Amino acid sequence: MAKTSYPLASVYGLLEPGPVVLLTTLRNEQPNVMPLSWHTMLEFEPPLIGCVVSNRNYSYQNLIDGRECVINIPAIDIADKVVGCGNCSGASENKFQRFSLTPQLSEVVSPPGIAECFANLECRLVDDSMVPTYGLFVLEVVAARCEENASTAQTLHHQGWGQFMVAGQRIRLTSAMR
Amino acid sequence: MAKTSYPLASVYGLLEPGPVVLLTTLRNEQPNVMPLSWHTMLEFEPPLIGCVVSNRNYSYQNLIDGRECVINIPAIDIADKVVGCGNCSGASENKFQRFSLTPQLSEVVSPPGIAECFANLECRLVDDSMVPTYGLFVLEVVAARCEENASTAQTLHHQGWGQFMVAGQRIRLTSAMR
Repeated sequence: MAKTSYPLASVYGLLEPGPVVLLTTLRNEQPNVMPLSWHTMLEFEPPLIGCVVSNRNYSYQNLIDGRECVINIPAIDIADKVVGCGNCSGASENKFQRFSLTPQLSEVVSPPGIAECFANLECRLVDDSMVPTYGLFVLEVVAARCEENASTAQTLHHQGWGQFMVAGQRIRLTSAMR
Repeated sequence: MAKTSYPLASVYGLLEPGPVVLLTTLRNEQPNVMPLSWHTMLEFEPPLIGCVVSNRNYSYQNLIDGRECVINIPAIDIADKVVGCGNCSGASENKFQRFSLTPQLSEVVSPPGIAECFANLECRLVDDSMVPTYGLFVLEVVAARCEENASTAQTLHHQGWGQFMVAGQRIRLTSAMR
């Protein structure tokens, strides 16, 4: 499905539900991708995201050196690719090729997005002060593209050791909370 | 349903899927409760949680002064109470009374848990260095209690302005990721 430019002020609604995301980075002009679930919104606008990447991950140094990434949100249709990307390392193989993921040119940052994901959030590293202690990277979303049906996407939510919850029904409650 | 002591090493599996949680704190011996969705795991064991509380929230000062809280995880059966707690302030009313929430004595910390939630994570504030910049409190889970059916609970996942995703089907994939 076609993606359109997405309002930065609405990005938080994509990440608050806690989906597994695919982080794309770049090293030596070769893109890498890793799945992660340890992320949280830190600010609405400009959207700031706190994202944990371990120094044991190949993407860690990519993020420190390149200071740019794309947070891609996958749905259940590529669940096997998502876990596959988590079961191997970019240090030894090209995951885009192995899992037939399509690099999608970003608008602002150097790392590509993933065409098979319904949302692509282009990010810049704006605060690395918590990286030594927690591996926590503070990212600012500088551009976002998303499919129209994002609010009903069947996102994946990791529960540990290969168990995932799939996004279920949507309900509306009388909340005044943004 | 009865709750039993829950392994601290397994706590991350409760929060990774991104459920709305109810944060309980204490001020002048009166408990308060607020819903929030901006949280992430920071470490497996001991479990460290990064949790964003705005200085506009009544709970903010409670957490800074008391340095203890309980992260309670509600399911859809108390969805109306969850949004109700987000639509008013502890500065002007006792939310436990207004929404008929039952304080549950904690094992280690002073603030009570919420009996109507299927999981109660007792936390101590261990790092407030990111509070001035992001309102990000680093909490260590020091005790946890949980119902047996937690892995299939119908948790709530906020998408903004009263729209929530309810946890759907569980699937198992061949992942080597903890």
